[in-house]
Amino acid sequence: MMTESNIASFDYLIEQFHRLPGIGSKTALRLAYHMISIPQEEALKLADAIAQARQKLHYCRICCNLTDKELCYICTDDKRNAEVICVVEDISDVMALERTGKFNGRYHVLHGVLSPMKGVLPDMLRIKELLARLQDKTVKEIILATNATVEGEATAMYLSKLIKPLGVRVTRLAYGVPVGGDLEYTDEVTLSFAIEGRREL
Amino acid sequence: MMTESNIASFDYLIEQFHRLPGIGSKTALRLAYHMISIPQEEALKLADAIAQARQKLHYCRICCNLTDKELCYICTDDKRNAEVICVVEDISDVMALERTGKFNGRYHVLHGVLSPMKGVLPDMLRIKELLARLQDKTVKEIILATNATVEGEATAMYLSKLIKPLGVRVTRLAYGVPVGGDLEYTDEVTLSFAIEGRREL
Repeated sequence: MMTESNIASFDYLIEQFHRLPGIGSKTALRLAYHMISIPQEEALKLADAIAQARQKLHYCRICCNLTDKELCYICTDDKRNAEVICVVEDISDVMALERTGKFNGRYHVLHGVLSPMKGVLPDMLRIKELLARLQDKTVKEIILATNATVEGEATAMYLSKLIKPLGVRVTRLAYGVPVGGDLEYTDEVTLSFAIEGRREL
Repeated sequence: MMTESNIASFDYLIEQFHRLPGIGSKTALRLAYHMISIPQEEALKLADAIAQARQKLHYCRICCNLTDKELCYICTDDKRNAEVICVVEDISDVMALERTGKFNGRYHVLHGVLSPMKGVLPDMLRIKELLARLQDKTVKEIILATNATVEGEATAMYLSKLIKPLGVRVTRLAYGVPVGGDLEYTDEVTLSFAIEGRREL
């Protein structure tokens, strides 16, 4: 490895940074070097943050979003519409949708997408938990907000087939030209969807 | 901040990653998410690595390189030539030079370069420690291997003026076209140095 320092605890630190996604060996060295250059209490804040996060965080018993309580802050918010559930792949998608401020329902986090190629089968996602939420007939609509990728599409299709027979309305996020996007650089599949889904002005 | 999750310990973890150099808010979110997605013992390895590094690592009493002992592995290696000291800015420069396998002397790490603009003055670098090493007349040559930047140059000049009067030979790394480099894309200052420093074949 090109970042060998010959000092065991420094090499170990580099190695641990290098194991993070998207962190190459040069960045790992830079981060390790940063950690020993800054004041001790600053460096230990990251170590503590990791330990604390692992100790306190788990998934909400209802929606499988991240929380440090038994139920997440969305599931316990009475002002949110309990009749609509937006199904997403990951907790980062919840954050992205919350930033819009446009959605007032609840969420359900699948923690992944179906991918037979990568060995991700239905029972490895939080689908059982989603179906359990439809039992008491409170939920009237499921918005499938998995990514617009092949796997996200396949997962949406799979869930749609499971949920529609239960008499719940199933919808999917709209496809179209992204705001600020240039028609010239928009791929033809997206453009086709944008034409099909055109709206009256 | 665009990565607010509304969960205190998760936001704190994101914030701590975001404080690392070169880690933007999206990468910080991705790293924080990774830390809570992997098995607990894997996540805690990074926390431990940071704590261990801060506990064990310090600077070598002689050369100011990083070490987990009193003296670094280079200063304690009798097979290394004690008559030549290569002066570098940072410990990563020691690693870079060691990878060449071409240098068999000792090092001295300044931990920075002179930069009046950034408020880095001579007494903030490990210059006193370098001069102390020249006292017993063992050292015959100092190779100034600070970076080829304006500040690296200025630091080399400053050290040269301090050390030459002590009767020690002072040299500087050669400038020239980098190996694999294209003349067409080499800046004129580098090319001028390459012509001046041309060698007999």
